[in-house]
Amino acid sequence: MEENGISKAIISRLPRYYRYLGELKEEGVERISSKELSIRMHVTASQIRHDLNHFGGFGQQGYGYNVENLYREIAKILGLNRKHHLIIIGAGNLGQALANYGNFESKGFLVEGLFDQNTELKGTNKKGIPIYGMEELEPFIRKNRVDIAVLAIPKSAAVVVAKRLTECGVRAIWNFAHTDLDLPKDVVVENVHLSESLMQLSYRMKKR
Amino acid sequence: MEENGISKAIISRLPRYYRYLGELKEEGVERISSKELSIRMHVTASQIRHDLNHFGGFGQQGYGYNVENLYREIAKILGLNRKHHLIIIGAGNLGQALANYGNFESKGFLVEGLFDQNTELKGTNKKGIPIYGMEELEPFIRKNRVDIAVLAIPKSAAVVVAKRLTECGVRAIWNFAHTDLDLPKDVVVENVHLSESLMQLSYRMKKR
Repeated sequence: MEENGISKAIISRLPRYYRYLGELKEEGVERISSKELSIRMHVTASQIRHDLNHFGGFGQQGYGYNVENLYREIAKILGLNRKHHLIIIGAGNLGQALANYGNFESKGFLVEGLFDQNTELKGTNKKGIPIYGMEELEPFIRKNRVDIAVLAIPKSAAVVVAKRLTECGVRAIWNFAHTDLDLPKDVVVENVHLSESLMQLSYRMKKR
Repeated sequence: MEENGISKAIISRLPRYYRYLGELKEEGVERISSKELSIRMHVTASQIRHDLNHFGGFGQQGYGYNVENLYREIAKILGLNRKHHLIIIGAGNLGQALANYGNFESKGFLVEGLFDQNTELKGTNKKGIPIYGMEELEPFIRKNRVDIAVLAIPKSAAVVVAKRLTECGVRAIWNFAHTDLDLPKDVVVENVHLSESLMQLSYRMKKR
């Protein structure tokens, strides 16, 4: 599987292909042409061929794509063929919403714990996921495998907590706090800045 | 203010400029050079000049950018100089997290109501925001100004609810349901597909 030289734009479109292929699989569809897929996805068939040809040999002339194969290959490219162990910092509404989101688990993202500074929550659980106090963060990470830490806390706390996480070895952060994190180069940070998305919507409303 | 011909890439960067300028304003900084701003934002000064020059005449040689002016101008471009009235469909953890997010209100996004099919929630409120039953959706929209509807419901319900919303005149949807909405062309939809963001993170972890 050749992945070098694949543009960021194509990679950013892969999860959407993955979603549509998952739906096709659920519907029992075994193969699909780029044309049929293009109608479903509202993109051109040539874009689909262009994107998927980068991964070589999935489509066959006159046959189309094998849904199951393509689904599995894209999963592999996205790293979904392995399990990821997550902890969520912040057990407020957002943290709980993320802990609750069963769809993550089906993709191999396992939430192992929630952490919160609210001492009343400590020792309780959210749908079976234990809630720990913030002072338990380092000991937990030392004892358990943590691949990804999710920051569902205000920006005032995020910078300090991100530092604590990386200092005890966490190398990937999914950041919902509305601030940029200045972390060592080997730490992968994916930001979800919700208010920026809302501003894009506002801009597009104005343009309409 | 010339906005035509501004690339999508620049527009997508504007909320981040807006955030940094807001922080500078809070710190009492009145002006800043592209160089200083570039150090803060970890982008090149030439990118900053290139992006901001599209909006003409904000920077002055040897003076830099007037923080207050630039902040206000970007707000105008993003449509943040007017109020937006929001309703949130789904009063689960995610809906409540969004209703709770005070930062939206400070940017002129006012949450006027939550809607949920859970009859136990009907008539209650979340921090002063009333929760309505789903059958109250159409009457509410007829009586009140609703600029944006937020979908914080599972994908199984989202398609039907989006149709109901657009049929009674809502023209902008902020969609958290993990599905694409096929709506009339004059409806603006901004998707937040959280699991796709998590897959991007997973991909980048694998590449590291």
